[in-house]
Amino acid sequence: MHHSLTKLSHADLLLQRLNIEEAQHTQRHAIGLILPNIRSLYNVGSLFRTADSALLSEIILCGYTPTPPRKEIEKTALGAVDTVPWRYMENTSDAIMHVKAQGATVLALEMTTHSRSYTSLVKEDFPLYIIPGNEITGVDADILQCCDGAIDIPMYGVKHSLNVAIATGIAVYEAVRIYRSLYIQP
Amino acid sequence: MHHSLTKLSHADLLLQRLNIEEAQHTQRHAIGLILPNIRSLYNVGSLFRTADSALLSEIILCGYTPTPPRKEIEKTALGAVDTVPWRYMENTSDAIMHVKAQGATVLALEMTTHSRSYTSLVKEDFPLYIIPGNEITGVDADILQCCDGAIDIPMYGVKHSLNVAIATGIAVYEAVRIYRSLYIQP
Repeated sequence: MHHSLTKLSHADLLLQRLNIEEAQHTQRHAIGLILPNIRSLYNVGSLFRTADSALLSEIILCGYTPTPPRKEIEKTALGAVDTVPWRYMENTSDAIMHVKAQGATVLALEMTTHSRSYTSLVKEDFPLYIIPGNEITGVDADILQCCDGAIDIPMYGVKHSLNVAIATGIAVYEAVRIYRSLYIQP
Repeated sequence: MHHSLTKLSHADLLLQRLNIEEAQHTQRHAIGLILPNIRSLYNVGSLFRTADSALLSEIILCGYTPTPPRKEIEKTALGAVDTVPWRYMENTSDAIMHVKAQGATVLALEMTTHSRSYTSLVKEDFPLYIIPGNEITGVDADILQCCDGAIDIPMYGVKHSLNVAIATGIAVYEAVRIYRSLYIQP
């Protein structure tokens, strides 16, 4: 038996969420993204939208990954380029070394010989940066060598991959779930 | 310290995954999707690809949701329309009643006055069907009334929604994680 389900109104939703001012000053989850050579403007926009929803710490755009402002990014980001901290660093390895020097763990989202499950994150993995792979080639070997390790999402079916924006959404929300269970929810 | 990370080769990946023949006979996860009036061909294709990866039981396409074969669906499904069981039922409420009569739980993926977290699934929720909302209007009120309940994904940021294909990917993989912890992994 269930109560009568009523969709939340736009006003209800506004009450529940941060405004832009609050988003700039709130404590964000200690989970960021490093995007090495993501080609699709729509994927980049979609990753911004996901990063806003998951309250990620920041997005570091690298290599030929397109940066805002671009109308195609905005089309899928729906305003999230203004709410998610981001910066551009040309060299992905430099970006990885930079955040590692500040104490972060960097994990590639890639099926490798030594990947562990995306559900296996522990306290020592945070602060965390996740590196999703390029749409065609995944995470390049030279970038993999700079990472602390790799996580992967099990593929139970016939095909061997998910869309990069969807795989990243799944991995990011699982990281948030674990992070909050460790640090926020008692 | 990490071992040298090496990406899995295409041959390694082929060994790990099902072939089409196996996919048609394997025991699939007791989690399906009902798609009521999803307009975008690309979203439908993407949902097929996710359903293949997550080894979902089936997709029921309803209302004006486009059905295969369509080249725009194929562009994002990448062959998954051939590996995921699917059927079309015009009326979404009929589809819900049909699977409920067979013992399934039907949960809308929607922020409502009585939604519970997408991470709260328990044994009694399986077999499960998830109904993601239409891109613009979410899950319609008359469809909500037919569901057993609703689950939602927390929105921590400024915006109030995720792309439907990404939200569904997150909810589906969490359902799979819980389902396997209950029924497959000891």
